[in-house]
Amino acid sequence: MLHQPAVSDDASHDPTFDDAAQNESTLVEKVMGIIRGRIAALSLSPGARLPSIRRLAETMDVSKSTVVDAYDRLVAEGVIQSRRGAGFFVAGRTQPFALTSTGPRLDREIDPLWIMRQSLEADSTALKPGCGWLPEDWLPQEGIRRAMRALARDEAAIFTDYGDPLGYAPLRLHLSRRLGEQGVEAPPDQILLVDSGTHALDLLCRFFLQPGDAVLVDDPCYFNFQAMLKVHQVRLIGVPYTPGGPDLEAFARAAAEHRPKLYIGNAGLHNPTGGMMSPAIAHRLLKLVEQHDMIVIEDNIFADFHPSPPPLLAELDGLDRIVHIGSFSKTLSAAARVGYIATRGDWVDRLTDLKLATTFGSSQLSAQLVHTLLIDGTYRRHVDAVRARLAAAMTLTSNRLKAAGLELWTEPQSGMFLWARLPAGMDSALIARHALERGVVFAPGNVFSLAHNAANYLRFNVAQSAQPRIFEVLHQAMVTAARGSSSAY
Amino acid sequence: MLHQPAVSDDASHDPTFDDAAQNESTLVEKVMGIIRGRIAALSLSPGARLPSIRRLAETMDVSKSTVVDAYDRLVAEGVIQSRRGAGFFVAGRTQPFALTSTGPRLDREIDPLWIMRQSLEADSTALKPGCGWLPEDWLPQEGIRRAMRALARDEAAIFTDYGDPLGYAPLRLHLSRRLGEQGVEAPPDQILLVDSGTHALDLLCRFFLQPGDAVLVDDPCYFNFQAMLKVHQVRLIGVPYTPGGPDLEAFARAAAEHRPKLYIGNAGLHNPTGGMMSPAIAHRLLKLVEQHDMIVIEDNIFADFHPSPPPLLAELDGLDRIVHIGSFSKTLSAAARVGYIATRGDWVDRLTDLKLATTFGSSQLSAQLVHTLLIDGTYRRHVDAVRARLAAAMTLTSNRLKAAGLELWTEPQSGMFLWARLPAGMDSALIARHALERGVVFAPGNVFSLAHNAANYLRFNVAQSAQPRIFEVLHQAMVTAARGSSSAY
Repeated sequence: MLHQPAVSDDASHDPTFDDAAQNESTLVEKVMGIIRGRIAALSLSPGARLPSIRRLAETMDVSKSTVVDAYDRLVAEGVIQSRRGAGFFVAGRTQPFALTSTGPRLDREIDPLWIMRQSLEADSTALKPGCGWLPEDWLPQEGIRRAMRALARDEAAIFTDYGDPLGYAPLRLHLSRRLGEQGVEAPPDQILLVDSGTHALDLLCRFFLQPGDAVLVDDPCYFNFQAMLKVHQVRLIGVPYTPGGPDLEAFARAAAEHRPKLYIGNAGLHNPTGGMMSPAIAHRLLKLVEQHDMIVIEDNIFADFHPSPPPLLAELDGLDRIVHIGSFSKTLSAAARVGYIATRGDWVDRLTDLKLATTFGSSQLSAQLVHTLLIDGTYRRHVDAVRARLAAAMTLTSNRLKAAGLELWTEPQSGMFLWARLPAGMDSALIARHALERGVVFAPGNVFSLAHNAANYLRFNVAQSAQPRIFEVLHQAMVTAARGSSSAY
Repeated sequence: MLHQPAVSDDASHDPTFDDAAQNESTLVEKVMGIIRGRIAALSLSPGARLPSIRRLAETMDVSKSTVVDAYDRLVAEGVIQSRRGAGFFVAGRTQPFALTSTGPRLDREIDPLWIMRQSLEADSTALKPGCGWLPEDWLPQEGIRRAMRALARDEAAIFTDYGDPLGYAPLRLHLSRRLGEQGVEAPPDQILLVDSGTHALDLLCRFFLQPGDAVLVDDPCYFNFQAMLKVHQVRLIGVPYTPGGPDLEAFARAAAEHRPKLYIGNAGLHNPTGGMMSPAIAHRLLKLVEQHDMIVIEDNIFADFHPSPPPLLAELDGLDRIVHIGSFSKTLSAAARVGYIATRGDWVDRLTDLKLATTFGSSQLSAQLVHTLLIDGTYRRHVDAVRARLAAAMTLTSNRLKAAGLELWTEPQSGMFLWARLPAGMDSALIARHALERGVVFAPGNVFSLAHNAANYLRFNVAQSAQPRIFEVLHQAMVTAARGSSSAY
């Protein structure tokens, strides 16, 4: 072996270790700088063998472990290469691949995934009123840093194991209690941790559906339902969504005609409209669901943004035919990936097998991090603060949209979404393309509509709509669209 | 609102903050103890309202934020409940759900997921020579703690964002360079980060396969291929695996007869046999693959355990029809969930859409953690050490198995698996059930075999086989099985 593991892996927990590590890190960087300098000056040319670790340590009067670390990091940077048993060599002439930042593809067709990729791929200067999540500075960055330090210190923390197939038990216990407070009786062993709301939905679709099956969704609904259910090769049937919830007559007709296995919906904070299901509609909808022997997936990822959320469908009807899913991606962190499914005992075991077969496990690290933030109070204080902030942003954005000549479909009580209608005949896809060229990502209505009858709607995220420039670009785009919609594209 | 966010979320990075937090934490626990005491003594009975935060803070001479934290944690523990706008109340008489530890189900049928669930659900005292991963104390726990602290300090770290749809760019760049060193030209934008090797395989099966398609796998092969491909409703065709790789005549016949779209395999460290593909077989297999217009998924998650791994199939043939997948679940941490797919440019974009539609994103936190461990040298030192340790364990376990009367199918050069044959006529499923009752999880051969012709094989993980008790239980089980295999079960 070329060099022994010179830095042992049993550094103490003492905070002073980090200081020692910092001094060590300065020395390592010094060695790296010298090697880089020699390569730049061609005193070490491509392919040349570097000095042995022992020799360089002696020459520079540093420890061998410092040289090992420096070489490791230069290997990681692609500056030098390690060849087992032979030593380290200056990397060859062939330029290693570099990262290219291409930005969003302006020419991509506006399909259901359009807004997702535009939002994700936009550069950091882009404004994203169309995007579906909170800005970074609305999320508890420092709370998460603290929780990571706490976890790194915790003797009982799990850093390497797969863990329980259902997911980290203390988090399931906590979620069980939270659901209990909301009137849903779900013991911890009926809660399956997954990576996200999306992952929950995907797993459930695999579990319940066969290609060709029918599924009812709201129209409009979260655009990704369309992309995902296309993957499952099922027939998606849209039910018009009214300000009080799904149109029940249409729901009953669709249920009778298509014999759907599933309805995907929720009682509070509807995406994209910001609407809510009235208690009467919820009650009658659940009767229809029973009558037609359907299963409901209650997708409730925005519930914590509501100061007084309406009863959960799972509270009204239990978990017999309501499968309740939730996630912390929108409310806490999308970087951690923690979601869950609460369901019947006889389904959870088979869902666990399905989860093992398709992803093996969910992240124990992320689950522990989220659990820490839930039990130390960070999460509750954070969502309290976000609710207040969203309420203010909702008022501001509503007023600006009305001033710009848009009409609100409903005045949402809370949450982050506003569903706004452009003047008659104006195409929101055109507006979105125009704005994208100016660095603003809008969410055009038809990505949410199965029937494609939302062409003159836009969805606004009030938390992402603070910059006045958004409304300037909106105004310009509307003027351009009004001037000659027939000539464009 | 009941109480303001008394603890602000902008605590400094200063390590002294953690000390202050520790003092604060002692006070919080004191308050919690007093409330618990009053509840236990029934001076606060179920359903009773707790003192207001202001009043308790005054009575106990602590800050309001201390009381808020104490109440939060008691809510988290299920001892008290929060009702918005009304205050805090002692939890009701109904016992909150507790975690039950049921342990592995002894009666579960031995299906392909059997060994996975037995290994995951076994309690901490169980011995698991049949499990497919390293013991916790073989993995760099302290290195991961250090990396978490480093990440928590890093100003540029991403804690809440979805991030790039392909996954954390610096990790993709690093993987691109690593693959480059192994002769595989994969630019960073042809590398898609996913959650694990399993997730990679699932995504690729969704991408390439339709129900009814044929897929070739080795027989025996990793048991989860069977469970996963059943989910995809494809026809799985087994090709006998020989000590030098797949039986090429059988491979050619199966390719001609079933017109498979995919072959899933790898050139080095075969699971479960520990075998390796010879260069000649690899070369001829790739010719057959081309001739029959198939795609190969090269699943190489154990490669880093090999001191001098054979050339990758993707090195021999490029990425045109070889899709290369890897993961850090086995070599570094299964709790983090980081894997990757390296593939053709025209496929990666569509795979990214599929990933977004079905899971939205992979964990940026985990990707940053793994990246930190790769570039600071922890990973390389760790796998160097593991290789040496595995070599010693391989010798020890080989000798013990031979002494117990088992025969080795091959003498693996490295890695963690040994494929061992029981005396003629002895059923490994019987041995596994017998051992499970005594707290030892064995891996019976047929969970790996599509043709179910490995009934008298067991797979041993040498890293999990240090305890002599394993071989005592094996001996007892063999004696019992020899005595009367017909009477049991």
